[in-house]
Amino acid sequence: MKDGSSSGHGGAGRKQGAAPPCAACKLLRRKCYQDCVYAPYFPADEPHKFASVHKVFGASNVNKMLQELPEHQRGDAVSSMVYEANARIRDPVYGCVGAISSLQQQIDVLQAQLAVSQAEVVRMRMHQYSSSNQSPEGHGWGL
Amino acid sequence: MKDGSSSGHGGAGRKQGAAPPCAACKLLRRKCYQDCVYAPYFPADEPHKFASVHKVFGASNVNKMLQELPEHQRGDAVSSMVYEANARIRDPVYGCVGAISSLQQQIDVLQAQLAVSQAEVVRMRMHQYSSSNQSPEGHGWGL
Repeated sequence: MKDGSSSGHGGAGRKQGAAPPCAACKLLRRKCYQDCVYAPYFPADEPHKFASVHKVFGASNVNKMLQELPEHQRGDAVSSMVYEANARIRDPVYGCVGAISSLQQQIDVLQAQLAVSQAEVVRMRMHQYSSSNQSPEGHGWGL
Repeated sequence: MKDGSSSGHGGAGRKQGAAPPCAACKLLRRKCYQDCVYAPYFPADEPHKFASVHKVFGASNVNKMLQELPEHQRGDAVSSMVYEANARIRDPVYGCVGAISSLQQQIDVLQAQLAVSQAEVVRMRMHQYSSSNQSPEGHGWGL
């Protein structure tokens, strides 16, 4: 399926409608032009990425969000949107927010465990201090 | 602005196009019928909720997602979508995923602190045990 007329500098050799379209243009059944806003982030060999964001955010919203961001931030924005869309497809009720609430619960548990452990360290230090001060030459606190 | 012809059972008395539309129908400039899928979750006095999900997910996606869920799960789905949409509006690059990654970092820090504290407890217990076994009648481990 390779186009023999390519000028030979990889992906940049894509001509109007001549090369395989990116995953977004393929799904939207439109021609994929060289300046396609989706193409750098939705390569043809990862069709599930665009399918997910299209289903959850809609192609025009994805397009708009990409256009509103400077180019150097678009890759991260696409990654986070794909992550968010996949979470919403897996869990249509809570999506990403399910993960947030489970992480927050995990933080609560860890904070409680840390408080217990730190209190135990303090208690043992007090005990140690008090024991060493109860030696014959000590001047104990009587704790 | 009250409709005198209402049968007097609160919100259920809304007639075709007679009462104020829900926030979604108002923004979409359409009539708000009694069986409106948005109305229970997007009341007229909270217009920002629908504005956010509309901007990020698109009204038709919100409609579709609501239709695909049983009624008892729709309230939670709307809350999580509003949360997610607001996060994406505040942070167009990372959205909700920014919160997830910051919570995960917090978990890493807490886990490291907990490991240090628990190791300290173990160390002090060993020390305590070893000290008590070095008393005249003890049979110490020599730790």
